[in-house]
Amino acid sequence: MAQKPSIPKGTRDFSPTEMARRNYIFDTIRAAFALHGFQPIETPAMENLSTLMGKYGDEGDKLLFKVLNSGNFLSHVDASELAGGEGTPRLASRLCEKGLRYDLTVPFARYVVQHRDELTMPFRRFQMQPVWRADRPQKGRYREFYQCDADIVGSDSLLNEVELVQLIDTVFARLGIRVAIKVNNRKILSGLAEMVGAPERLTDITVAIDKLDKIGLDAVNAELLAAGLAPEAVAKLQPVIALSGSNDEKLATMRQVLCDSPTGLRGLDEVQFVMQAAAPLGISAAVELDLTLARGLNYYTGCIFEVKALDYAIGSISGGGRYDNLTGIFGMPGLSGVGISFGADRIYDVMGGLDLYPETMNAGPQLLFVNFGPNEAAHCLRLVAEARAKGIRTELYPDAAKMKKQMAYANARAIPFVAIVGETEMANGQITLKDMRQGTQQQMTLAEAIATIGA
Amino acid sequence: MAQKPSIPKGTRDFSPTEMARRNYIFDTIRAAFALHGFQPIETPAMENLSTLMGKYGDEGDKLLFKVLNSGNFLSHVDASELAGGEGTPRLASRLCEKGLRYDLTVPFARYVVQHRDELTMPFRRFQMQPVWRADRPQKGRYREFYQCDADIVGSDSLLNEVELVQLIDTVFARLGIRVAIKVNNRKILSGLAEMVGAPERLTDITVAIDKLDKIGLDAVNAELLAAGLAPEAVAKLQPVIALSGSNDEKLATMRQVLCDSPTGLRGLDEVQFVMQAAAPLGISAAVELDLTLARGLNYYTGCIFEVKALDYAIGSISGGGRYDNLTGIFGMPGLSGVGISFGADRIYDVMGGLDLYPETMNAGPQLLFVNFGPNEAAHCLRLVAEARAKGIRTELYPDAAKMKKQMAYANARAIPFVAIVGETEMANGQITLKDMRQGTQQQMTLAEAIATIGA
Repeated sequence: MAQKPSIPKGTRDFSPTEMARRNYIFDTIRAAFALHGFQPIETPAMENLSTLMGKYGDEGDKLLFKVLNSGNFLSHVDASELAGGEGTPRLASRLCEKGLRYDLTVPFARYVVQHRDELTMPFRRFQMQPVWRADRPQKGRYREFYQCDADIVGSDSLLNEVELVQLIDTVFARLGIRVAIKVNNRKILSGLAEMVGAPERLTDITVAIDKLDKIGLDAVNAELLAAGLAPEAVAKLQPVIALSGSNDEKLATMRQVLCDSPTGLRGLDEVQFVMQAAAPLGISAAVELDLTLARGLNYYTGCIFEVKALDYAIGSISGGGRYDNLTGIFGMPGLSGVGISFGADRIYDVMGGLDLYPETMNAGPQLLFVNFGPNEAAHCLRLVAEARAKGIRTELYPDAAKMKKQMAYANARAIPFVAIVGETEMANGQITLKDMRQGTQQQMTLAEAIATIGA
Repeated sequence: MAQKPSIPKGTRDFSPTEMARRNYIFDTIRAAFALHGFQPIETPAMENLSTLMGKYGDEGDKLLFKVLNSGNFLSHVDASELAGGEGTPRLASRLCEKGLRYDLTVPFARYVVQHRDELTMPFRRFQMQPVWRADRPQKGRYREFYQCDADIVGSDSLLNEVELVQLIDTVFARLGIRVAIKVNNRKILSGLAEMVGAPERLTDITVAIDKLDKIGLDAVNAELLAAGLAPEAVAKLQPVIALSGSNDEKLATMRQVLCDSPTGLRGLDEVQFVMQAAAPLGISAAVELDLTLARGLNYYTGCIFEVKALDYAIGSISGGGRYDNLTGIFGMPGLSGVGISFGADRIYDVMGGLDLYPETMNAGPQLLFVNFGPNEAAHCLRLVAEARAKGIRTELYPDAAKMKKQMAYANARAIPFVAIVGETEMANGQITLKDMRQGTQQQMTLAEAIATIGA
């Protein structure tokens, strides 16, 4: 046999078993989105490169998969552009007008602007589709993966942030994953940056603070100084680094720290409103103020969220926040929105690691009719049709193979019931139903069998 | 404002309304697939070009969307290859290692070969994913569209063909589309080609015969002669062109015509078996022998199927057939299979044209709480959580906007019930529930409202 065919690195095939698990996650998220009033949209896999380029930084531009123009793709390219023999991003954009979407946020912003006249604001949409990134593949990082996003645009109200906290809680409560919802606010971080007089060091600050548990206070302070902060700035940050206690206690401390920053205080007000509004709503997740939470994406302007699984060590399994000008990049300024993204692949790993998939999730066949030959098969075809009409997922083994082989097939596919219909059963109008898990079998009518299987 | 952003030609955005309709179709097909014992797999959007090239003919190779290699995409290209300044397919394959899948059949064959050791044969899978073709876009033809395929590989039994006839019937009966299932067999067509001594004229023959109703017998015969058939061959074809009557009558006539062709007779046997086995199974679709049915794809070797909507003028809405060597192209010969593909986009058009979408399909929100201000909103948040816990898709309007605006929002989103909770209702622990379709409203407890909405 020739060499086995393969698939591009960083991509995956999904088997029926994996699909059942993935669909369980997707269906749970989709139902939670609908319960909270979100409605689905879909956008094309390919977007114009002009829509995608420049939205994810220089690094993101490199990670976009670009689609070669159809026909004579060199017709608009000068010989001089090719002469260098180097495949530059500039040359790529001459060869390719389209690229695969990199996330669901930019296509959503494009969608809102393009369809603005058809949309009812505030517009709540969800979207569950694959995205593609030419990242170096590694454990848990793929070049094709699903994102599950819910956003509300066209409303500044903080009730939308409360809505997202509730949505996160619904999703993970239904999946059975215990989580903490970490909350921060970009305005608090801006206030801190103002305060220490080094806005450009903001990332270094949050990264260093985040290491407190691991490396201790002295090492954190050393890192901050090494990052270029003035000793007075580091001194001012001490209450922030040591921040602890309840959310209320943390907020009180931070109000002192940021007392001179109107922006910082506004961020604290926003976080406080969201936490207080969510408190009486029976949320089962822990909601925690976490000042080390920064999130990589530059477009956030208000509250930011990240979700951590409590019982499984993995990065954040959901994240999002408030952005004030997402559609501005497409010429429609002033539209505020807030959104959350669920990471299906990490959730998949958590569910597997904690063994949280329900047994009832399997949508495989429930009943297999054994095939003893042409006459029996013809008889069984009618019974198969009848069982299906009653909603039982049923099949007839297509070949009159040895009994042992047909039973092995039922076992391999985890089909829980097998119907054996030979001459005796054909004569008395019954079937012998074998319960594959119990190993028992019994003659009965098809109606009785359907009742047994459906029970 | 800047120019509106757009999407690549031949691609589409789907709004919530369109998504509800599409999901209704996909859910119906998916449920039918599961009922018939098929289980889902998914494959990556990108395949290695070596997997895709040469599988769809020269024309198909041109219609593949190719993905530019990441990094320096010219690093493996000689200056001499670029010198011509022409974007040839050969050069494209140097610049691109990957392409977007063109259908679900070749990726399925690749999947079967790659995962052969994990699969239980016969292997029944379904797959519902988008495919991409750089076709010239036109009405009803897109560059990105969904295919919904079900296949059984690893069994020669004609019971699998019967299974597909049942599956087709289940899908369209559930969708409410009246259809005819046209059946033919490649072996019958081979027999005819043998008989007239002109195998290479087979397509011309089926095309000409297909025009009988439109242009009449004389014109059909003239076309056949013009296509290069000998007068004796055309004479032999007369009973085929004039073929009419019941399936049994057609089969009897064809047995005479093909009496000297063992291959042709085998094809007739196969069709007859499938029709006879299906007859007592309560199939509601008309199953018809149609010798003009040829299907474009070369890999079919046995029975072929096409489905026509009876009440709406459009091309075939489903099609498939038996292939004996699909995995041979990947070095795994001798594996027979049979499959069927449902054309979601055409089905979408038929459903719309015949107004077949059920009213209950909408998964939009059922209940909107009006927002009168911070106190009322805080009170309503608890009621929203309670309604959701009872499964009612609910939202709170996020801003304390004018009543008229909030009502317009409920109307635009077709939300059937609105909850009005002002000071009075807060005081007496009730809500005023407005039925937006009836225009009536009444005070009641939340539990009563939930019962009303859920009814």
